[in-house]
Amino acid sequence: MSLKLDSVSTLLNEPDAAPVHSVTLFVALVSACIVIGHLLQKTRWMNQSVTALAFGLCTATVIILTTNGKISDILLFDEDLFFICLLPPIIFNAGFQVKKKQFFQNFIIINLFGVVGTLISFGIISIGSAKLFMKFGLTFWDQGDFLALGAILSATDTVCTLQVLNQEDTPLLYSLVFGEGVVNDATSIVLFNAIQKFSVHVTPDTVMQFTGSFLYLFSLSTLLGIAVGLMSAYIIRKLYFGRHSTDREVALMILMAYLSYVMADLFQLSGILTVFFCGIVMSHYTWHNITESSRVTTKHTFATLSFISETFIFLYVGMDALDMEKWKIVKGSPGTSVAVSSTLLGLVLVGRAASVFSVSFLSNLANDSPIDKIGFKQQVTIWWAGLMRGAVSVALAYNKVFGLLTKPLVRLMLQPREESSEISSPKSSSALLPLLANGQDLASELDSVGGGISIRRPSSLTMLITKPTSTVHYYWRKFDNAVMRPIFGGGGEESPPNDILH
Amino acid sequence: MSLKLDSVSTLLNEPDAAPVHSVTLFVALVSACIVIGHLLQKTRWMNQSVTALAFGLCTATVIILTTNGKISDILLFDEDLFFICLLPPIIFNAGFQVKKKQFFQNFIIINLFGVVGTLISFGIISIGSAKLFMKFGLTFWDQGDFLALGAILSATDTVCTLQVLNQEDTPLLYSLVFGEGVVNDATSIVLFNAIQKFSVHVTPDTVMQFTGSFLYLFSLSTLLGIAVGLMSAYIIRKLYFGRHSTDREVALMILMAYLSYVMADLFQLSGILTVFFCGIVMSHYTWHNITESSRVTTKHTFATLSFISETFIFLYVGMDALDMEKWKIVKGSPGTSVAVSSTLLGLVLVGRAASVFSVSFLSNLANDSPIDKIGFKQQVTIWWAGLMRGAVSVALAYNKVFGLLTKPLVRLMLQPREESSEISSPKSSSALLPLLANGQDLASELDSVGGGISIRRPSSLTMLITKPTSTVHYYWRKFDNAVMRPIFGGGGEESPPNDILH
Repeated sequence: MSLKLDSVSTLLNEPDAAPVHSVTLFVALVSACIVIGHLLQKTRWMNQSVTALAFGLCTATVIILTTNGKISDILLFDEDLFFICLLPPIIFNAGFQVKKKQFFQNFIIINLFGVVGTLISFGIISIGSAKLFMKFGLTFWDQGDFLALGAILSATDTVCTLQVLNQEDTPLLYSLVFGEGVVNDATSIVLFNAIQKFSVHVTPDTVMQFTGSFLYLFSLSTLLGIAVGLMSAYIIRKLYFGRHSTDREVALMILMAYLSYVMADLFQLSGILTVFFCGIVMSHYTWHNITESSRVTTKHTFATLSFISETFIFLYVGMDALDMEKWKIVKGSPGTSVAVSSTLLGLVLVGRAASVFSVSFLSNLANDSPIDKIGFKQQVTIWWAGLMRGAVSVALAYNKVFGLLTKPLVRLMLQPREESSEISSPKSSSALLPLLANGQDLASELDSVGGGISIRRPSSLTMLITKPTSTVHYYWRKFDNAVMRPIFGGGGEESPPNDILH
Repeated sequence: MSLKLDSVSTLLNEPDAAPVHSVTLFVALVSACIVIGHLLQKTRWMNQSVTALAFGLCTATVIILTTNGKISDILLFDEDLFFICLLPPIIFNAGFQVKKKQFFQNFIIINLFGVVGTLISFGIISIGSAKLFMKFGLTFWDQGDFLALGAILSATDTVCTLQVLNQEDTPLLYSLVFGEGVVNDATSIVLFNAIQKFSVHVTPDTVMQFTGSFLYLFSLSTLLGIAVGLMSAYIIRKLYFGRHSTDREVALMILMAYLSYVMADLFQLSGILTVFFCGIVMSHYTWHNITESSRVTTKHTFATLSFISETFIFLYVGMDALDMEKWKIVKGSPGTSVAVSSTLLGLVLVGRAASVFSVSFLSNLANDSPIDKIGFKQQVTIWWAGLMRGAVSVALAYNKVFGLLTKPLVRLMLQPREESSEISSPKSSSALLPLLANGQDLASELDSVGGGISIRRPSSLTMLITKPTSTVHYYWRKFDNAVMRPIFGGGGEESPPNDILH
């Protein structure tokens, strides 16, 4: 009881009351955003994130006008909040709900985008800014600063991508751009460490070291996520938690998902990669071992937590954009600020273009079948959708513009292409999946493996050479059914369906 | 992306890595507690909270042995964490799942316990400690300190009560002791403010002021909770959220529940009272306006969040007990510490006994029907179950001992009495409640109104005098059906059932 009284006494002291003020404000604003976003969702130009951004801007304006620019007092939330509370549910839910077959089918291209593409962007932005910034008189930056700038601006932002692209409408683009965002988290951590540790001269030795540490980080992060996911499946299956309590099952899934993230952080791995793969494994095994009410609960709880976090982030970005204190930190005259901003914007555009078009070219070169190739219009959309980055910290104004424009662009560019590549089959397999009200999910996945051509029995080694992904998938299925499922459970390939009860 | 890198760079600096260490440790420990608690739950002497306490003690021992007593570095969690994150879900869930009829039937007794009982305890502990502590040479305490000590130690701890008493087994005791804990939060806030503001001499004037501010705080906190709950019901009903998205409904319920708590904190009201009544209103109205999958999700999500918070708190108390830094703060020789501790323990025991037996005597005096009277054995259980207090902050060692002993005590004391007062009727009303797999909940509530005697039509004013609670309930039902439900929705009296799908 003394704690209660302590909190009362701290409330009475004005300085300590600030957290409660800002928590109340943010909770109220997020609630309002959800209601307004619901009312506006039929409007073409507005979605939940744009509503939240607009709300944040309006609130910040009101606060500035009423308190003479003391917005920093309200915005007490820091980076820890973002990394410890908001980001993990978003990425975990993305892994939990991702169309696994679509994702792994494009695994090689995703890695090309996430590694090679990011390195190309990094090179262009670092070298470009180093050359151009000299002309603006920014001589106090050293080589390390430019390399760090390149590393920061070369990676795409997964949270923005999730808001802008829709998994149902454009599954291929979604898995490419979102997958790239997940993979390049590892790339940027390695890049950043590399900048700090190695000499800046690129020698064959540093390239080897870089490749080695990337492979180390990537594989360890992935393995950690898979290990924690499998452990949760094994524990829940063996101890059969649901016999006693749904709450215990749900609590264990939430906690172990979060555990994978913080463990990765602790071991200086990529938490995003880890929690993403943990989500994939949990939806493939753990989710099938729990009771029906736990399935409904986990599916909606993860989606809800992710939804709240996303809304919160966009609201925060909107408020942050008007934080005068942060703008004052930018050194130099207004003219220099504009020049620097537009140079960076140009470099990001060029770097992204170079990376997307070259990786797409490589990928198309390796693919024979015309249906697997990435068309020019798709390349433009990937280029555009991946432009938004660092929304939360950099809070660059142009992010918002891009967000507004991407939805119509996707519609404009991809109408004919996407429809042809997403053939929906007759809903025949629903009897196999009692929980999946319509079999669309599985059916379309069965169709899309091998690019629309149904593969029943790949019987020769030629398969492995001509269609490596499908063949790997075939053997994986065999292994999964023979070894993994008897140990870890799991009923099928499908992700948790969109609405389990209807 | 820059934020990611920032977090990486902060991870590299050792001092900032501490939060990640402790978060990882706590998440891993809570997960382990849940698994071990599941395995041990058939054991008579162990429950989830005792497991968590034991775990905390063991972990603290290991940390002390390996790091030479630097446990304070790991325990970076502070009171804000407890009040902003852990307490709200526990109290809200208690309100959401409480047997409403049982609770309101005993509303007057609960308020007697929560107000009069707390004041009696407060008086005994304050005056007693002031008289006795002089003898131990503790002359540096002034009158205000003793009054604050009385206010701190006179209120019971709701979190402990929830763990020790079971709503299903002993509904009357549960609603009395838990309800008392909710109400006395308001009492203790008023007491604490009163100590700071008013003179310590008790005059008719200060009594009036105290009564006034208690009524103000109690009614405003309750009204705020009810208002936010009704608002959520109205918004969800009018805008029909479920048509589009279950996640939005669930997010809105979680956020508005939390909003009620932080708003109460902001207005210096009792957050516990507010969020408790918000939970009651949400389970009565809002919960009936949402889709079926949202119902399953909210019910289990609230229970899970509460479960995780409780486990975490007990784990934390276990670890906190071995925190050497805190023990060093206790001034004086070991002998004085023991004397002070045992004096306080004695005063708490006596104060609690005085308040429980006098309030029970008053309550029994007002009640004619022998079935409504609180028996001596029940009084002893109420006395005992309400002894645990301030678990988190005071971390008194005797809490744990009480926790261990209460479960068998309840079983010993209440076998005959409880069975007679909880008559279960034939499960006939299940057809009316498609979601309630067996109608036990409603049926037993129908039975228990008026103490086991079924009341169909109270037709005269005599009813109001002889059975005030039942009559108020009868008119409330009429009002609820005629006015409230058409506006705010709501399908029945029942709380969300224990397992909705089975």
